[in-house]
Amino acid sequence: MATGGTINLGVIGLGRGLMLALPALIAYPAIRLVAAADPRPVARERFAAEFGARAYADWAELLADPAIDAVYIAAPHQFHAEQAVAAARAGKHVLVEKPMALSLDDCRAMAGAAQQAGTVLVTGPSHSFDAPVRHAAALIASGAVGAPRLITALNYTDFLFRPRRPEELDSAQGGGVVLSQAAHQIDIARLLAGSPLRSVRAVTGDWDAARPSEGAYAALLDFANGCAATLTYSGYARFDSDALQGGTGEFGQPKDPAAHATARRRIAALSPGEEIAAKLARAYGGASPALPPAPVANEQFGLVLISCERADLRLMPDGVWTYADDGARFTPLPPPPAAQYGAIAAFAEACRGGPLPPQAGSWGIDTVKACLALSRSAHERREIRIEPEAPSA
Amino acid sequence: MATGGTINLGVIGLGRGLMLALPALIAYPAIRLVAAADPRPVARERFAAEFGARAYADWAELLADPAIDAVYIAAPHQFHAEQAVAAARAGKHVLVEKPMALSLDDCRAMAGAAQQAGTVLVTGPSHSFDAPVRHAAALIASGAVGAPRLITALNYTDFLFRPRRPEELDSAQGGGVVLSQAAHQIDIARLLAGSPLRSVRAVTGDWDAARPSEGAYAALLDFANGCAATLTYSGYARFDSDALQGGTGEFGQPKDPAAHATARRRIAALSPGEEIAAKLARAYGGASPALPPAPVANEQFGLVLISCERADLRLMPDGVWTYADDGARFTPLPPPPAAQYGAIAAFAEACRGGPLPPQAGSWGIDTVKACLALSRSAHERREIRIEPEAPSA
Ligand SMILES: NC(=O)c1ccc[n+]([C@@H]2O[C@H](COP(=O)([O-])OP(=O)(O)OC[C@H]3O[C@@H](n4cnc5c(N)ncnc54)[C@H](O)[C@@H]3O)[C@@H](O)[C@H]2O)c1
Ligand SMILES: NC(=O)c1ccc[n+]([C@@H]2O[C@H](COP(=O)([O-])OP(=O)(O)OC[C@H]3O[C@@H](n4cnc5c(N)ncnc54)[C@H](O)[C@@H]3O)[C@@H](O)[C@H]2O)c1
Repeated sequence: MATGGTINLGVIGLGRGLMLALPALIAYPAIRLVAAADPRPVARERFAAEFGARAYADWAELLADPAIDAVYIAAPHQFHAEQAVAAARAGKHVLVEKPMALSLDDCRAMAGAAQQAGTVLVTGPSHSFDAPVRHAAALIASGAVGAPRLITALNYTDFLFRPRRPEELDSAQGGGVVLSQAAHQIDIARLLAGSPLRSVRAVTGDWDAARPSEGAYAALLDFANGCAATLTYSGYARFDSDALQGGTGEFGQPKDPAAHATARRRIAALSPGEEIAAKLARAYGGASPALPPAPVANEQFGLVLISCERADLRLMPDGVWTYADDGARFTPLPPPPAAQYGAIAAFAEACRGGPLPPQAGSWGIDTVKACLALSRSAHERREIRIEPEAPSA
Repeated sequence: MATGGTINLGVIGLGRGLMLALPALIAYPAIRLVAAADPRPVARERFAAEFGARAYADWAELLADPAIDAVYIAAPHQFHAEQAVAAARAGKHVLVEKPMALSLDDCRAMAGAAQQAGTVLVTGPSHSFDAPVRHAAALIASGAVGAPRLITALNYTDFLFRPRRPEELDSAQGGGVVLSQAAHQIDIARLLAGSPLRSVRAVTGDWDAARPSEGAYAALLDFANGCAATLTYSGYARFDSDALQGGTGEFGQPKDPAAHATARRRIAALSPGEEIAAKLARAYGGASPALPPAPVANEQFGLVLISCERADLRLMPDGVWTYADDGARFTPLPPPPAAQYGAIAAFAEACRGGPLPPQAGSWGIDTVKACLALSRSAHERREIRIEPEAPSA
């Protein structure tokens, strides 16, 4: 595609992930939604009608379409690797949903294929693209607050009690919160620490017999530069940590504080078949596929506090607090035009010849490596050292 | 002393620690302050005059006084062991300030001496005596919320920027925040987890060249029962975590949100000699020894969140939030008559023949062991396994 030109984008997987990204894909001026691939006819038909796009039952056919410059892979985890490798080989830029893939070998194959093809590969949207995270990372990189020393991140959600596909609750297939949610928290910590991860010590929790899965964790991350991060996540939460964050939700939407508590009761009332139907109802083409409302604040992933040499930073949905020796100041950050706009824009600019975001190329390998180490540390009840990737040929 | 009788109490060390405990010692009906020992004449004279008490330059003389039933040891860390052992041998009950002592051998000698003498030994006041902590521990022990799984504790204070004695900033002499402040957080986590500690992985921070010391840490504690705790503490904090807690301070006092930021500037302006003078000015008998104001809330040690099988608990200075499947409820807990009253009362009741609190006897050994492991984990950059104490003979 031409530098600075319009991106003809194909979407692979028209589910809940796409619903969240769709407002940003629509809002970004240089993106044109030209094709989609999904096994569900209802979703394909709807997409074709809504965007005047081509729709394929088989994603390989979409990749064979020479008019497509880039693809957004939002199919279930287990398809990311095969689709991303094939896309790169077909010369398409790739935005692949987190987690990049389920094994390190798969991640390496994806990064290798993109490198060989000279195509852009970005893993996301992840919450490391949220404006407050990027603002803090830029502030740290500028040297204005000194080196980062200690990062604390805490997120208490109802992740386990949202309607799920069976594999989303099967840790062996990449279900649970480690690959799906720790990937966000680790991306945030990695971006802020700005240093390779050295080791992980973690515990995970599998606390609901009706939905066996790794649904919670706590982890201590030790980075090579001496920065450390403690990450805490519960997907079983009765307490909603958005209450610490001013009350907007993960995607910057206004949030009913009472809604959180009902998730568990709603899900308990569903049979397995009803649960899959409930999930698909929220997907693209489903019966109740409401787009996320326009954000009133930035996206967020719970409490994030960063102690740097000369200041403490606290990320909020509406900006960043800097607590320094001369007092506290707040840098307001306006809401994005749509949730996940930051990630979509970063990917699109890279496709158009602009700079690559940090979350490009082999970035995702290291996040998946950290996720797998987190889970392994919990199972083996010991610290796991992270081996750096061998430099690629 | 007689069961249920009045406790004739001697105080060893009339410093800042005593200032904090004094209102509770005065408020507790069955305690009579009858003696004190301190090398500072001004403090002794003042104590003798205020309480009609005997005052000794040499603490050994105080212990020889047969009219004394119990002692509160609030001398600097390095004297705790020798004084507590001698006190037990003299038949006195002992409330010893945290940290219990600086080495495990010292702690063991203290617990052994008390066991042999049949005297009460309590380590405290620690924040594990705060009413919200005890309420949550009792709720957990009752079985009402299921087993504890994950504890998150975060405290951001100006500990490093309060006036200090030189040894308080020398990690080799027990200075820094590990023995002085992690002792609180670990006591809280131990009481809530209700299980032996199995391992610690931690990092510590030594972030101020002008005040070299371990002034911050992050730790992951793995308990035998599978409960885990992440502890984060910064004593260099520009951000004040009391802001997350409703705005009252560590001792339940109303707090000026602007005061926090000035600590660093005030201390930077002092010469070492002026700093010691500033510390002593706040001690008993000093020039500005203001008693802590009457508490408007309970004591607190920052954010504490506990995920149990069937509920999340959040400790606040004015009570405990229980987030359960049927919604959130708040159990208000009235402020104590004076800060640290819970610890003083628990010690006094044990002296009077009542039940021993969990923080008695060998409890303190395990907390110091955890503190030393925390520091060692940071220095060796690896997880430290905790060896259980051999059962005492
Ligand atoms: N970044 C975020 O905030 C976020 C949020 C939700 C989901 N996601 C990610 O999006 C991905 C999909 O999750 P979801 O929640 O949208 O699931 P979903 O079940 O809602 O949607 C999956 C969609 O993919 C389709 N599909 C199934 N197999 C396919 C294949 N082989 N090729 C193409 N399409 C296929 C399904 O028909 C469905 O439309 C996951 O990797 C998930 O982690 C990310
Ligand atoms: N639980 C709490 O919240 C808390 C708060 C402050 C201090 N403390 C503890 O109290 C202890 C004392 O610390 P501080 O801040 O009060 O120190 P400080 O310097 O204010 O006071 C120490 C006092 O002990 C006296 N002293 C010195 N050597 C002595 C000796 N050999 N025998 C008797 N007295 C002696 C000093 O003259 C001084 O009056 C420490 O162990 C500290 O951890 C606990």
